[in-house]
Amino acid sequence: MARTASLSGYLELLPEERLVELHMLDTLRRVFEAHGFSSIESRAVEPLEVLLGKGEIDKEVYAVSRIHDDDGAAAAAKHALHFDLTVPFARYVVENAGHLAFPFRRYQIQKVWRGERPQAGRFREFTQADIDIVGDGELPFRCDVEIALVMARALEALRIGEFTLRVNSRKLSEGFYRSIGLEDTAAVLRAVDKLEKIGAERVAAELVETAGASETQAEQALALARIRTSEPDVAPRVLDLLGDAAPDDLLRQGLEELTTVMAELTSRVPGRAEADLSIARGLDYYTGTVIETVLHGHEELGSVCSGGRYESLATKGRRSFPGVGLSIGLTRLLSALLDSGEVSASRKVPTAVYVTLREDQDWPAAQDVADQLRERGISAEVALSAEKFGKQIKYADRRGIPYVWFTDEQGRHEVKDIRSGQQTEADPASWSPAAVDLTPQIRFNDR
Amino acid sequence: MARTASLSGYLELLPEERLVELHMLDTLRRVFEAHGFSSIESRAVEPLEVLLGKGEIDKEVYAVSRIHDDDGAAAAAKHALHFDLTVPFARYVVENAGHLAFPFRRYQIQKVWRGERPQAGRFREFTQADIDIVGDGELPFRCDVEIALVMARALEALRIGEFTLRVNSRKLSEGFYRSIGLEDTAAVLRAVDKLEKIGAERVAAELVETAGASETQAEQALALARIRTSEPDVAPRVLDLLGDAAPDDLLRQGLEELTTVMAELTSRVPGRAEADLSIARGLDYYTGTVIETVLHGHEELGSVCSGGRYESLATKGRRSFPGVGLSIGLTRLLSALLDSGEVSASRKVPTAVYVTLREDQDWPAAQDVADQLRERGISAEVALSAEKFGKQIKYADRRGIPYVWFTDEQGRHEVKDIRSGQQTEADPASWSPAAVDLTPQIRFNDR
Repeated sequence: MARTASLSGYLELLPEERLVELHMLDTLRRVFEAHGFSSIESRAVEPLEVLLGKGEIDKEVYAVSRIHDDDGAAAAAKHALHFDLTVPFARYVVENAGHLAFPFRRYQIQKVWRGERPQAGRFREFTQADIDIVGDGELPFRCDVEIALVMARALEALRIGEFTLRVNSRKLSEGFYRSIGLEDTAAVLRAVDKLEKIGAERVAAELVETAGASETQAEQALALARIRTSEPDVAPRVLDLLGDAAPDDLLRQGLEELTTVMAELTSRVPGRAEADLSIARGLDYYTGTVIETVLHGHEELGSVCSGGRYESLATKGRRSFPGVGLSIGLTRLLSALLDSGEVSASRKVPTAVYVTLREDQDWPAAQDVADQLRERGISAEVALSAEKFGKQIKYADRRGIPYVWFTDEQGRHEVKDIRSGQQTEADPASWSPAAVDLTPQIRFNDR
Repeated sequence: MARTASLSGYLELLPEERLVELHMLDTLRRVFEAHGFSSIESRAVEPLEVLLGKGEIDKEVYAVSRIHDDDGAAAAAKHALHFDLTVPFARYVVENAGHLAFPFRRYQIQKVWRGERPQAGRFREFTQADIDIVGDGELPFRCDVEIALVMARALEALRIGEFTLRVNSRKLSEGFYRSIGLEDTAAVLRAVDKLEKIGAERVAAELVETAGASETQAEQALALARIRTSEPDVAPRVLDLLGDAAPDDLLRQGLEELTTVMAELTSRVPGRAEADLSIARGLDYYTGTVIETVLHGHEELGSVCSGGRYESLATKGRRSFPGVGLSIGLTRLLSALLDSGEVSASRKVPTAVYVTLREDQDWPAAQDVADQLRERGISAEVALSAEKFGKQIKYADRRGIPYVWFTDEQGRHEVKDIRSGQQTEADPASWSPAAVDLTPQIRFNDR
């Protein structure tokens, strides 16, 4: 990872690093599919107006145009690369609603592009791994619980280290603000969302200036955001902050939902979640559960997995599609783990056995040996020329291939474990490597 | 597949179609890795001049620019989406040469983009699956044999139906043209490459006009292109066409190489290859073995897998990297097979077991059942609410989920095979579905 990217903001992996990425992709797929999520992919390109309609990100969109359209590409650019997987998924759901069975569980692992200012750990092309459940008209609340559970298990399976899902409910926050008399809840959320960035004092000032809060209301809103606990039942602490005000229905519902999510997470993935009432998620479309995830020891990454509930992911005429989903920013995570040396692959190639050549003309016979191994799922490669055995062994060793195969002039086979130097007779029709050597192993160091 | 794409030239699959694609991707990966090929990915974006330098395809390139750059995106566009995986791979090899072990075997399966005129079976975004072996300075000829073998096996494993690798050698063609006195071999190749499109008569005329051929020479070149045989040794037929001319060294080498490739293919993947001396491959960089692949019954697709040998994939100062590779156009292939109904998935979701709810409050207990199944690799989904059993069974049936799970008030478990109606007692800690039902099966129909 000491290499410099030839195009800043774009990460390209070496084969041994790609093995780590493939392992992560396979792991996510396994967990998502075990929970009944279907894979889909959407095209990389969306109409520009669809992307720009979602605000907040205008400047980061990459427009796409055919060079062919030579009346000025700037004017002609009608399409752009997607910057997340939620906007394309919403379109996909509307377009294919007649062919999908709702509630529809899908996972989607694809690259997205953002024209971000290049800086350490920020990429212009990166892979997101999303899961969502989408309903037609309605979607039971327990989907929020399920989504959080599946992602907690996925993150555990990735073995990225200790992490905490920080869970809140938009209903709780908005209901609380309303209960204490703050009606412009969007303005309050926008201010509170900046808490980690600008600190309590400036948030309080902004609440007064932009959300019409009194000093007391601002203090109440900030006190709410300070609640952070792994104790599922947050209701007593929240209600305490109301003073004389009565909790409205939205607040009651939010408290109930957050308590339920926290109770299930605490029982099924112990130690992986806390209620954190500062979590706001800036995006307007969240309407219920909201989640961010901190990776301990890698706080610099920000949230590695975020999302929540949106009452209307998409609409089609009078039909509305509510959803709940979470998204992992995989590339930043992978890059950080590779950089820190926490994760690595045991070899550079899939090959488990390197079949040497005694003489150049033995190549077809060596391929026969390799084929017998391959048929039994053992990755094998044949030497390209009959160099000195020492050179052939070095070829395998440089790639971390664990075994080399020899066949003598009488057709007797022997296989050598390069690491131990141990050499034994072997039959290509039945010999197998140690299970741990069959495919490259992913090593989690310092854990 | 009766849906209309909302953006012409872009294919988006339904979940059940995506299962077929995933199966194809998994199959290719398995075969490539069994032969020791490493996975890499390259960024989607390349500097414009790198892409345009490769000619032939200028008009099809999609330029990419940040909307942010508001001094006119057309002028500012310095980057574009890659249109194949060979150009990015060449750059990757040069940039990472110090970190790679040569000869370097890699596979790369990624989307590419071309601004083609939309028409049936032509896509603007499509997936290519490439394998290449690249050497540092030199690369033994037998890599040509290996690449052809691996791809033939990959195509067999895909079960796409009968196919034929059409193999030729640039050395053979160019050597033949030179031996009969045609020096502008590039012009000859360009003309002969049009044989299927414009016919023999017009190719002959073009040979006379653009390649300076006499009528006799044109006839000889066309006679060469008519040779098509599954007999490995083509030398006698080729030498016969020379008349009084003597075969030059290049022709001799080409004959030997083609014969070797054909002999190995004939013995290791019988019936999958023929020598077809009309194969030219328009691209200038091929220097030896060239291959196209016809899928029988789908001739309209053109070549589904093409490539060959290039003496210089890339250069770095005085260092040259020769390579040989083949590329499958996966999206067109998949789309054709789905459209014709030749391939389909046995269900729409990964789920093997649908765990029903007797009462709403049973959801946590039902998740426990599902978790016990998931831990043993069985995909399970829990009902979201305790609707009537008939409705819950219908939910599973619509998705093709083979099994539904019931737990009665005494905590006794039963599992029902929806297809047979058979219902039996079951223990979530030990019950397993039939192996064939564990994951969605890919069905090859009419075969």
